[in-house]
Amino acid sequence: MKQSIGVIDSGVGGLTVASELIRQLPKESFIYVGDTKRCPYGPRPEEEVIQFTMEMVDFLMDKDIKMLVIACNTATAYTLDLLKEQLPIPVVGVIQPGARAAITSTRTGEVGVIGTEGTISSGSYVHSLKNIDTTINVRDLACPRFVPLVEKGIVSGQEAYDIVVESLQPLLPYKKMDTLILGCTHYPMITELIQEVMGPAVTVISSGEETAREVSTILGYRKNLYQGDELPTYHFHTTGDVGKFHAIASRWLKQKIDAVSRISLTKLEGMGEI
Amino acid sequence: MKQSIGVIDSGVGGLTVASELIRQLPKESFIYVGDTKRCPYGPRPEEEVIQFTMEMVDFLMDKDIKMLVIACNTATAYTLDLLKEQLPIPVVGVIQPGARAAITSTRTGEVGVIGTEGTISSGSYVHSLKNIDTTINVRDLACPRFVPLVEKGIVSGQEAYDIVVESLQPLLPYKKMDTLILGCTHYPMITELIQEVMGPAVTVISSGEETAREVSTILGYRKNLYQGDELPTYHFHTTGDVGKFHAIASRWLKQKIDAVSRISLTKLEGMGEI
Repeated sequence: MKQSIGVIDSGVGGLTVASELIRQLPKESFIYVGDTKRCPYGPRPEEEVIQFTMEMVDFLMDKDIKMLVIACNTATAYTLDLLKEQLPIPVVGVIQPGARAAITSTRTGEVGVIGTEGTISSGSYVHSLKNIDTTINVRDLACPRFVPLVEKGIVSGQEAYDIVVESLQPLLPYKKMDTLILGCTHYPMITELIQEVMGPAVTVISSGEETAREVSTILGYRKNLYQGDELPTYHFHTTGDVGKFHAIASRWLKQKIDAVSRISLTKLEGMGEI
Repeated sequence: MKQSIGVIDSGVGGLTVASELIRQLPKESFIYVGDTKRCPYGPRPEEEVIQFTMEMVDFLMDKDIKMLVIACNTATAYTLDLLKEQLPIPVVGVIQPGARAAITSTRTGEVGVIGTEGTISSGSYVHSLKNIDTTINVRDLACPRFVPLVEKGIVSGQEAYDIVVESLQPLLPYKKMDTLILGCTHYPMITELIQEVMGPAVTVISSGEETAREVSTILGYRKNLYQGDELPTYHFHTTGDVGKFHAIASRWLKQKIDAVSRISLTKLEGMGEI
């Protein structure tokens, strides 16, 4: 029986990570759970994020996944260490791969990080970077206007460009900064704009791309890459509106989506309220 | 007691990998063994490469290393699977990280690989790439003139440029190729020339850089990154001429080398014949 890789996110942002996982691991099957109904996790208290994440994990563990990817910065910050200890399968979050790729990329030792207010104030990227290299100089910046922009589908054009320019302004004086981590899974949708504003001397790191790379590394290290002939399957589950999820998933994954199903993660919640 | 990461190579080529390991993992200590006296491994029969590699591994296991990096393409091709099974510590080779990085990088699905005749004829990179993605199109090419060039220290100027242009000629018609793997640890010393000849549309992947990245990933996954305050130490051992090794190591690592010692790996071999 071919085992899938489980991917969890507070909503649709993790689809950029799923897209990279599918691209870089074309033989593997994936099951994605997006807790769209309770999104965003950013402003919620830690205990609640842990509880919601655990509900998604329980759902996936029942499906006998071989690996878990936490494709959400907030959930990674609060639950990665816990899940690594508790689960019998490997667990990868989105923060460490981005940090590690930035260390590989930087030559000046000056790295920028952008993300939601929650991610930036958690200091998770700074912690992950310093954990490997104490001499790294980190400039972090919350860009709260990016997620609403991307969710509205405005990923190019003058309006998007203006918001990106205004938001990134505080980073522009740091001429030594040669690497910028996109510390939010929504941001890869506007990579081109961010690159344009930052200039060609700055390497823009997508957490999703790097997370997929590390999933591949760890599966390879554990000799657990799929080697059979079964075609991969991609199953999507959302706690929210199936139609909306399907529309965004089709656009972001740039491929036909066969099955999106609505699930309930809490026992008290009814199923018929779309 | 702080445990070191062990690095083995048939000679000095692995120093480009060591250089990246030191850069990307500045808190870690390393012990490097270069079997300079019996270099190169490429033309040797498989059993001999396995025997020589095992002698280096035994030397390092006595020093209680926490991880082993095979910084040599030939030794990786012949011994990685064996060592992964036999050793109680994680083992990383130079081939898989380069292959994986190429899959992350390519958008066209057409990847080039250059290496020594031994590495190219072993088909190891093609195998590693196809192992992850069967649809990848690989063009491989042996560049036997590169290693002598680098070992002579000719890494820029007209002579080097001419040799690089002539050697890479067979790859230039493949306009869809957007990624090139440097499948030899010597080649990063002439990355700039290779990049110039291939053009800006081709991403050049250095196995050493990617191997260091994967070592970091696996140590992070195993929660085995060094977290204390002890300064790192770098110990170098060669089976050949200490003076020559010291000179090359100082140049390639771009830092002061404190200690290079000569070791004997075989019991029959004397020590006084430098």
